[in-house]
Amino acid sequence: MSKPFIALDWGTSSFRAYAVDGDGKVVNQVSAPEGILAVKEQKFEETLESHIGNWDKKLPVIASGMITSRQGWVECAYAECPAGATQLAKSLHVHKTTSGRQVHFITGMHFKSPSIHHDVIRGEETQVVGSLASGARHFVTPGTHSKWIEVEGKSVVSFATYMTGESFALYRQQSILGRLMTGDVADAAAFKRGVEQAFADPAGLLHALFSVRTLGLFKDVAAESLSSYLSGLLIGTEVAHATMGHDRSADYQILGSASLAEAYVTAMKLAGLKVTTGDPLCVISGQREIAHAAGVI
Amino acid sequence: MSKPFIALDWGTSSFRAYAVDGDGKVVNQVSAPEGILAVKEQKFEETLESHIGNWDKKLPVIASGMITSRQGWVECAYAECPAGATQLAKSLHVHKTTSGRQVHFITGMHFKSPSIHHDVIRGEETQVVGSLASGARHFVTPGTHSKWIEVEGKSVVSFATYMTGESFALYRQQSILGRLMTGDVADAAAFKRGVEQAFADPAGLLHALFSVRTLGLFKDVAAESLSSYLSGLLIGTEVAHATMGHDRSADYQILGSASLAEAYVTAMKLAGLKVTTGDPLCVISGQREIAHAAGVI
Repeated sequence: MSKPFIALDWGTSSFRAYAVDGDGKVVNQVSAPEGILAVKEQKFEETLESHIGNWDKKLPVIASGMITSRQGWVECAYAECPAGATQLAKSLHVHKTTSGRQVHFITGMHFKSPSIHHDVIRGEETQVVGSLASGARHFVTPGTHSKWIEVEGKSVVSFATYMTGESFALYRQQSILGRLMTGDVADAAAFKRGVEQAFADPAGLLHALFSVRTLGLFKDVAAESLSSYLSGLLIGTEVAHATMGHDRSADYQILGSASLAEAYVTAMKLAGLKVTTGDPLCVISGQREIAHAAGVI
Repeated sequence: MSKPFIALDWGTSSFRAYAVDGDGKVVNQVSAPEGILAVKEQKFEETLESHIGNWDKKLPVIASGMITSRQGWVECAYAECPAGATQLAKSLHVHKTTSGRQVHFITGMHFKSPSIHHDVIRGEETQVVGSLASGARHFVTPGTHSKWIEVEGKSVVSFATYMTGESFALYRQQSILGRLMTGDVADAAAFKRGVEQAFADPAGLLHALFSVRTLGLFKDVAAESLSSYLSGLLIGTEVAHATMGHDRSADYQILGSASLAEAYVTAMKLAGLKVTTGDPLCVISGQREIAHAAGVI
């Protein structure tokens, strides 16, 4: 039990707000394709009020996501890894809007990565904090930049970013590989073939990408299924690398949109991993936990 | 000694023609950024004549490159691997132009790849045939789609394509990675750092790409040097995979433009490989060899 609040999940490409009651139940919600990159001239407050102007201004707003990045409303320094709800609660940044709302921004996290020196997340840490009650300790948040996040106790201890979603969009839309594609049928067999190609040779991505073209040229994969094969190739390469040398008996939980989560579940099961999907609204639970730890709600 | 001819090297992005005498010496040349993709409405003959209209129409024209692809002048079926000058000579496709020239098109090659089922080249086979006198038997042709080509005796026996150049252009120009880049200084240290990152973990490309962003964010690599780091990361990943399980004492020869060849020489030397650069005009030697074997010159 805590106090009611407004949950704000504001990312690069979408805006989502939820009115949440004392039991953590969503009583009102609004979403729009107004991610931070669509907001002009720093008009973040105006955009917020255009969506929730008639919601109680006395309720605290708890915000997470790319809204705290350099391109966002208020840039917040990263919290250092390891950190959980307690540390994130201490790093909350409070901003009073001209309309009188108190917005509490949850900062992102920085990890001194042994593989790439620096790695960062903004928003996914809150989803993970909101998913700990499930018992899972290994999380994947698929997307433009997928994150593989490890938890010990109640703290995020490490994570790794993969540019898989952005790479798919680039090769699909901007490269020679898109030229042979006619439409994007979700072809499970072509997806699986891509995943297995990646598993057989995970260091060969730059080479295997060319097979998206040649399998099309030689009609081994239908033109409308080539994008499924490409997707499998990229996601398979990510899964192969992210689980290299890791405990194969671990339970993984996928957080995020249903269609993308399904693709990851398929690929990870092909790798022999144990995997489930998490709560799509875990970000609200995470915000509630962090704000409660901070005494805000 | 053979007869004089006109060498035509017509690729995706450039047009190059050379008048070659009986000793194989270039006596006249013209080049233009009129690759096959810049030619509208199949006006290949008009484009050719606009550049060499006053060259002797009795000389045979020997052509290689993407000009024989589906997007080119005359689509030629691939010759099957293994093949050398003798087989390519038998596959020559002759086309008589309305202005009375005889154009002999050299076809590309298809390889039943054990790694990706189908692999193809168009033009590089001719460069390799023209480089065999050097004694080298392992060739790399860097570019949009790099090719690693193996020769036994005088025949191309296998090859592998890497989408390295196209990937660099996509990530540099279209992805989030380009946003932190200010200009493109050729920074040898940043390039080397990228190569070494790739060598340390060649299966981790989708992860390491994100370091182009974080090393910029945390000012570990200067904004103007990030593109050199990205280039090193991609070329290093290609070199690591292409030489995996191969004889480390082999002599490699790089064919192609000087600046790109230099980057590959650097990366391959960092891998402990023996590597030299080949003749920039090897395509002419290859065309001469093939046309001579066919009795055309």
